[in-house]
Amino acid sequence: MNALEKLYEKNKENKFVCVGLDTDINKLPSFLKSSDNPVLTFNKNIIEATKEYAAAYKINFAFYEKDGVDGIKNLSETLSFIPEDILTIADAKRGDIGNTSKMYAESVFEHFNFDSVTLNPLMGYDSLKPFLDYLDKLHFILALTSNPGSADFEKLQLKDGSFLFQKIIDKVKEWNERNNCGIVFGATNSNELAENIDRIDSLPVLLPGVGAQGGSLSDVVTLFKRKGRTGYLINVSRGIIYKCSDENFAGCAKDELMRLNKEIRNLLFT
Amino acid sequence: MNALEKLYEKNKENKFVCVGLDTDINKLPSFLKSSDNPVLTFNKNIIEATKEYAAAYKINFAFYEKDGVDGIKNLSETLSFIPEDILTIADAKRGDIGNTSKMYAESVFEHFNFDSVTLNPLMGYDSLKPFLDYLDKLHFILALTSNPGSADFEKLQLKDGSFLFQKIIDKVKEWNERNNCGIVFGATNSNELAENIDRIDSLPVLLPGVGAQGGSLSDVVTLFKRKGRTGYLINVSRGIIYKCSDENFAGCAKDELMRLNKEIRNLLFT
Repeated sequence: MNALEKLYEKNKENKFVCVGLDTDINKLPSFLKSSDNPVLTFNKNIIEATKEYAAAYKINFAFYEKDGVDGIKNLSETLSFIPEDILTIADAKRGDIGNTSKMYAESVFEHFNFDSVTLNPLMGYDSLKPFLDYLDKLHFILALTSNPGSADFEKLQLKDGSFLFQKIIDKVKEWNERNNCGIVFGATNSNELAENIDRIDSLPVLLPGVGAQGGSLSDVVTLFKRKGRTGYLINVSRGIIYKCSDENFAGCAKDELMRLNKEIRNLLFT
Repeated sequence: MNALEKLYEKNKENKFVCVGLDTDINKLPSFLKSSDNPVLTFNKNIIEATKEYAAAYKINFAFYEKDGVDGIKNLSETLSFIPEDILTIADAKRGDIGNTSKMYAESVFEHFNFDSVTLNPLMGYDSLKPFLDYLDKLHFILALTSNPGSADFEKLQLKDGSFLFQKIIDKVKEWNERNNCGIVFGATNSNELAENIDRIDSLPVLLPGVGAQGGSLSDVVTLFKRKGRTGYLINVSRGIIYKCSDENFAGCAKDELMRLNKEIRNLLFT
């Protein structure tokens, strides 16, 4: 299965929640901190407990890079716990001149063997092309992000009346001729998603901003349902993995994910 | 000395060339490939040969990350060869939501101890703030890049008539209240630099695009000279480090850097 097929396959099973592994040693249950490798132990337990219910796992590179060599080892080993049929997303927001992006793409897809990556499009097409040349992978390109700073540039109005993030969506549709592109679209404000869902058309969408950042799960699911489409992932990081901080942290994460899945099924089938 | 002081100090010595360590194992002199650690041996020799003449060193993260744990070790060790008084730039083009950017900043400034970083501003102020809170560091924010894809978004015209990259420059000036920001401005086309040099005002500038990418060294130096200002770095990567591919590769790199320095001095003092 290629990356896109993995996404649609899980969506078909009514799984839409991507579990974000933003694993921060300072937020781990305190009893874990005495273990040999708290981050890895935490991730292994979270993945074991949630893998039957997750649509995808997103690994936030920053949380691993900050520990240098040890962090990179943890990143690699964490990937090895994730079943082959579940989409893995390298949340790395890369994008650079061509020969550099080629190296980043090699890192993400060949060294670590992720299925998918998040990309920053500011530097334009040639900065993304070395990634897009990996046809079996799925490239989630930042359009509108879920943070307040999205107002600084992403929401600037262009001469033609559209907004920068809308121009990015249009370009991604152009660049999607090989059916391996998607977008990141922040779900903090569901009106923005509603206003742009036609423009997004059939592009796969990764949606951060639900949960800790304030977006509404039910608004998102209802919107996609109304459009009669799947091919999307609602990312929840802190809301799942730090749900409880006691010895039952993994069971709590599983319960929270199952609760979200149930809420989504209720929205889809009523 | 903080990062900004390191920059001005080298500029005062008429050193303006930043040596880009885009070290690619496939481009190394073949005799090195049998050594234990070709990348590290190459970097050590290049730095030894050029450190008296370099204004700064820029390390392109992609070229190290692609080798995973071994690459990260090489990145760390490479930094240890660079004298304390020379500015080190983490060319990582980071930028993410606040809690994630905080981790990236920790990685760059605390784990690796770089003086400076390149940042991607697409996600706006709060995505850069965790970096900017490091007051002694220097933050080069992407405004106009040197690649063809800069036409896709950076050069889009906004409703108010300015271009996106100009809006970025304006914002960086606002964000520079603690005197620790600069911009990346591609020097591929020196007319663009000429047209925007007043807008850039006194911001420190990192200029890629001279050399392999086609920009003119003399145009850049002449422009800054006319404005009566320093506080800039002309990055040259491939043009220096791969100047020769024989056993004298380090001597060649040194000669090329000395030649560029001489060309710059001639422009400044005639």
